[in-house]
Amino acid sequence: MINFESDYTEGAHPAVLEALCRTNMEQLSGYGSDHYCESAKAKIKALCGRDDAEVHFLVGGTQTNQIVISSVLQNYEGVVAADTGHISVHEAGAIEATGHKVLTVPQKEGKMNAADLRTFVSGFYNDGNHDHMVFPGMVYISHPTEYGTLYTKQELKDLKEVCNEFGMPLFLDGARLGYGLMADGTDVSLKDIAELTDVFYIGGTKVGALCGEAVVFTHANTPKHFITTVKQHGALLAKGRLLGIQFDALFTDDLYFKISRNAIEKAQLLKDALRRYGYQFYLETPTNQIFIILENKKKEEIEKEVRVSFWEALDENHTVVRFATSWATTSENLSRVIEILK
Amino acid sequence: MINFESDYTEGAHPAVLEALCRTNMEQLSGYGSDHYCESAKAKIKALCGRDDAEVHFLVGGTQTNQIVISSVLQNYEGVVAADTGHISVHEAGAIEATGHKVLTVPQKEGKMNAADLRTFVSGFYNDGNHDHMVFPGMVYISHPTEYGTLYTKQELKDLKEVCNEFGMPLFLDGARLGYGLMADGTDVSLKDIAELTDVFYIGGTKVGALCGEAVVFTHANTPKHFITTVKQHGALLAKGRLLGIQFDALFTDDLYFKISRNAIEKAQLLKDALRRYGYQFYLETPTNQIFIILENKKKEEIEKEVRVSFWEALDENHTVVRFATSWATTSENLSRVIEILK
Amino acid sequence: MINFESDYTEGAHPAVLEALCRTNMEQLSGYGSDHYCESAKAKIKALCGRDDAEVHFLVGGTQTNQIVISSVLQNYEGVVAADTGHISVHEAGAIEATGHKVLTVPQKEGKMNAADLRTFVSGFYNDGNHDHMVFPGMVYISHPTEYGTLYTKQELKDLKEVCNEFGMPLFLDGARLGYGLMADGTDVSLKDIAELTDVFYIGGTKVGALCGEAVVFTHANTPKHFITTVKQHGALLAKGRLLGIQFDALFTDDLYFKISRNAIEKAQLLKDALRRYGYQFYLETPTNQIFIILENKKKEEIEKEVRVSFWEALDENHTVVRFATSWATTSENLSRVIEILK
Amino acid sequence: MINFESDYTEGAHPAVLEALCRTNMEQLSGYGSDHYCESAKAKIKALCGRDDAEVHFLVGGTQTNQIVISSVLQNYEGVVAADTGHISVHEAGAIEATGHKVLTVPQKEGKMNAADLRTFVSGFYNDGNHDHMVFPGMVYISHPTEYGTLYTKQELKDLKEVCNEFGMPLFLDGARLGYGLMADGTDVSLKDIAELTDVFYIGGTKVGALCGEAVVFTHANTPKHFITTVKQHGALLAKGRLLGIQFDALFTDDLYFKISRNAIEKAQLLKDALRRYGYQFYLETPTNQIFIILENKKKEEIEKEVRVSFWEALDENHTVVRFATSWATTSENLSRVIEILK
Repeated sequence: MINFESDYTEGAHPAVLEALCRTNMEQLSGYGSDHYCESAKAKIKALCGRDDAEVHFLVGGTQTNQIVISSVLQNYEGVVAADTGHISVHEAGAIEATGHKVLTVPQKEGKMNAADLRTFVSGFYNDGNHDHMVFPGMVYISHPTEYGTLYTKQELKDLKEVCNEFGMPLFLDGARLGYGLMADGTDVSLKDIAELTDVFYIGGTKVGALCGEAVVFTHANTPKHFITTVKQHGALLAKGRLLGIQFDALFTDDLYFKISRNAIEKAQLLKDALRRYGYQFYLETPTNQIFIILENKKKEEIEKEVRVSFWEALDENHTVVRFATSWATTSENLSRVIEILK
Repeated sequence: MINFESDYTEGAHPAVLEALCRTNMEQLSGYGSDHYCESAKAKIKALCGRDDAEVHFLVGGTQTNQIVISSVLQNYEGVVAADTGHISVHEAGAIEATGHKVLTVPQKEGKMNAADLRTFVSGFYNDGNHDHMVFPGMVYISHPTEYGTLYTKQELKDLKEVCNEFGMPLFLDGARLGYGLMADGTDVSLKDIAELTDVFYIGGTKVGALCGEAVVFTHANTPKHFITTVKQHGALLAKGRLLGIQFDALFTDDLYFKISRNAIEKAQLLKDALRRYGYQFYLETPTNQIFIILENKKKEEIEKEVRVSFWEALDENHTVVRFATSWATTSENLSRVIEILK
Repeated sequence: MINFESDYTEGAHPAVLEALCRTNMEQLSGYGSDHYCESAKAKIKALCGRDDAEVHFLVGGTQTNQIVISSVLQNYEGVVAADTGHISVHEAGAIEATGHKVLTVPQKEGKMNAADLRTFVSGFYNDGNHDHMVFPGMVYISHPTEYGTLYTKQELKDLKEVCNEFGMPLFLDGARLGYGLMADGTDVSLKDIAELTDVFYIGGTKVGALCGEAVVFTHANTPKHFITTVKQHGALLAKGRLLGIQFDALFTDDLYFKISRNAIEKAQLLKDALRRYGYQFYLETPTNQIFIILENKKKEEIEKEVRVSFWEALDENHTVVRFATSWATTSENLSRVIEILK
Repeated sequence: MINFESDYTEGAHPAVLEALCRTNMEQLSGYGSDHYCESAKAKIKALCGRDDAEVHFLVGGTQTNQIVISSVLQNYEGVVAADTGHISVHEAGAIEATGHKVLTVPQKEGKMNAADLRTFVSGFYNDGNHDHMVFPGMVYISHPTEYGTLYTKQELKDLKEVCNEFGMPLFLDGARLGYGLMADGTDVSLKDIAELTDVFYIGGTKVGALCGEAVVFTHANTPKHFITTVKQHGALLAKGRLLGIQFDALFTDDLYFKISRNAIEKAQLLKDALRRYGYQFYLETPTNQIFIILENKKKEEIEKEVRVSFWEALDENHTVVRFATSWATTSENLSRVIEILK
């Protein structure tokens, strides 16, 4: 049985694991104060091209969304997201658990549109009754989105313009950032993101690490006493080294980018095959997630040999499934799945 | 300037005020343990026709929604509401502030439909990923709705059936309950509501009291240590008598129903006049709220003499406004507004 | 049976009730935007002697403590209180319910000492590990305290100095403020409090109102969008007039001060009698609360004719009880209780 | 520079790391549904000697305390802890952040006494006013405690008896459990803990893992939909394998116990040396934490060569420091520190 269910089916990239092994018996102070954390932060800052960027390591994506959002918002504010945004649907109410509403705007292929955002926020401020409503305090987008799609640089600029107009920080969830940055045809670089957002994160869990997300506050805007907030959320690792060493390895010799590129190339080959064999795409995506509409019989057949992810029931007889490639997808597994799909 | 802006523009019904004055210097114990509270509770239970009903007094509507919902839900649960539900839009995130998500379903004229509810909840349970989502833990409806509309008895039965099917208590927000019960053509009685919901409240603030809502848990299902929860939310009045005496007066000699009927009759006369003069209704409503589409010029003109409530901008040139009658609407003011509208 | 159980056993002062009756049918806008609220605020500001003071009305004490504290604190901060502070013991965890810890320092006769506060806060900042601890974000005191005692002006200055040193706003709970201001021997005036604290409130519930507390942010320091925060806590009265009219009446012709003085005078007479009859005081208090140690037999006997408040079991045979006088205590009831105690 | 600052200065035990490497490229499903998690859970259940025990893996100690406590408590309840308990002091208000108060009882050498607990809880229930107070909903102890001390089996039984009497689940924080179980002279086994508590955890972070704590609900009493609660707290690892594989390795061939024993033996040797050299102990401890009172000059001198942990300032001239041994402490480092201390 081969597995295209998600991009977190394997452990860590061998170079990451090797770094953990190599440094294992070194005695280091706790809570992220070690020199590996420092080194990894310096590398990320340099790649962002911003001296005033501040980097923090957290363990997972939902945790990161919860901590960033709740530490940036005021009590009377909520976060604006596409109605398909991860924080809106698939984080078990992690944002609400901190007392904040997720305010939703319509999505198109998983993306939020600057015009829709402006309509929503200006509608709020034009409502005479808005003192009785949740203030839109920041904007959350994901890149790649939950549907594997990407913003263009112009789209990000447009969103940022609306954010600036209404004093809302822009937060970009980069759980799969590597796959976005290395996609064909994208004009959005890491430096662009560091320029156009107020805070974002570089996902490790889905791109070669055992766990870990690198949060970047882009202009010396880390919320005060952030480490205490992290501790309060139960998110401060005693062995902070676990995150520092992994990100240090991922950002040595462009490893993060190279392994992200593997996912893209394997996805392209898989998409070519699917197209060749006449499969119907639910959505065109430039990244590592591929959404296919299958007849339910066909789906059952395929699932005898390949694990894929159920996405949604389209109608009684058809289902949308997701194939995900990753940094770890091998040519061998790719050939096998193409063979099976034929 | 006369005021049809809302149903809370006057103080209390004179009989309510008279009761407060008459009992004023009586020494009573605090926190709702006095005999007026007991008497009011007994009267409400009798009207509900349920021996196992349990009544509690709170100060206002948002407070009541917050306390009832957060004390009934488990941490992993949210409350399902129409997307126009008061808790969803106009309570400044009071539900989220207690850690719970408001899950929305589409509305029709302010009402939630049993079929839409079933689609939403069964969709949740059919989603293989629902462990990562907020569980639908209870259902919130308002009667009359925020749009002044009413459920039929059959609609309530259908909603309750879905609730039972999925183990969700049904909560009815009755901030304007009197105006619903006394509307022409409704087949829903107080006893029906006590039968078909798990918890509801009888609004006082908008129906003759200075403040106060009477929460009814319909079948001995008050959450454990509810008084401590009320205290924790800063909602336990030291002088609980203020609520007990008012509700005792409102439920003496059918006062609550009689004064509610006044609002209905005045609203009918106003609607007749509006229709006669060719005004365009945004929505047909059987209760005390009337929604009219006005040309903006006309609106400005009217507002020189009458205060009405801005509801929404329909387009560049038209606005929806709300006229509200109440227990306090006088024939004199009604004649004046009809004169002005002519 | 006469009642010395608390200072909230009667309704409202007749002049307050009269104001409610007189204005009852006036049509007013909701949520505290009416002219009675404006008038009451202006009077309070004038009495505080500060042009930059900002006044807001809330319904009750726990609600006020919860809203003020949670809107002033950052997420990583807690509030410092005496370990007998009302927020620490008798508010059912209302502060913690908003996510904040109550940090306690020792009390002496219900009061917090500047030296103890400095020891606590400087201890916090000297602890190398304080990033893993709750930051002391503001200081809460009550005046009169829960034990009926009063701070001197010097003690308030000393506390404020420590607060300034560590950047902590000082919040004074004045649920019984009138009884403190009118006590014999106090050198603390309302103007002093407005000068020496950052936020405080003037209690109405226990001093002549049906309900209501007037919060004063002393130097244009109301937290942003405070009305939305109030709404979010379910504390925004639709009929805000109920609070405005009452406070307007209380601050007309010095009513608040005069009726507070009644409680003090009655308490003095009662204390004189108790002393004369050889009762043992648990504590000397200059305000309207009197704490007496009774043999349990004696207690039972007295309680046949007078309701008093159980305070604590001192030992197997003795109990501390509280007698409270108030604005409403009559000479007649005073004579009766003195007769009974003889 | 050698490091006796804490028990989390190295990475993972080599056998743990080896297991991670060996399984690294195996494709596994996410969120703890893999067979390594299953295997580790089965081993832990067997060691607990309870078929009805249920095991869950979390990442760190504060996270575990927060999630267990908030999922077990009702909204009106708090958790009782020794005033030195980790949740009370050093978790940045993580419990309060979920809306619950930490209720404290006095400690003796870091331990809570059954008599003190009974006094506190029965005092609560005897207080006529306890409806206005936070209910004691569960009891938290740590074993070893924050002071390195241990409960005897009789002490645990006595605490459990009080817990049963008042319907409070008993929760044992075992962040350093291995060092407690392998201490000389203890009569408390893992089976005893599984018998005498309602929920506890076996610490991995401080005993050989990179991260991870194994929570055991001892009698099929996992709170409903616990995985959703874990997700809501941002604590659900996508690569749950990281925890399963580590615990599977730790509970293979008694590794957890053997490596815990190393810490105990090294600590004994260090204590012997300290005693021999006339150092003053702040406290006698049977586990891996050693608390020593140093003159400040001596402290500075030692710290040139050894990192230790600042515990508290005893007086102007003396400081309490902590030496911690661990699973990783080598004979070589032990000899060096003994040499330095001579």
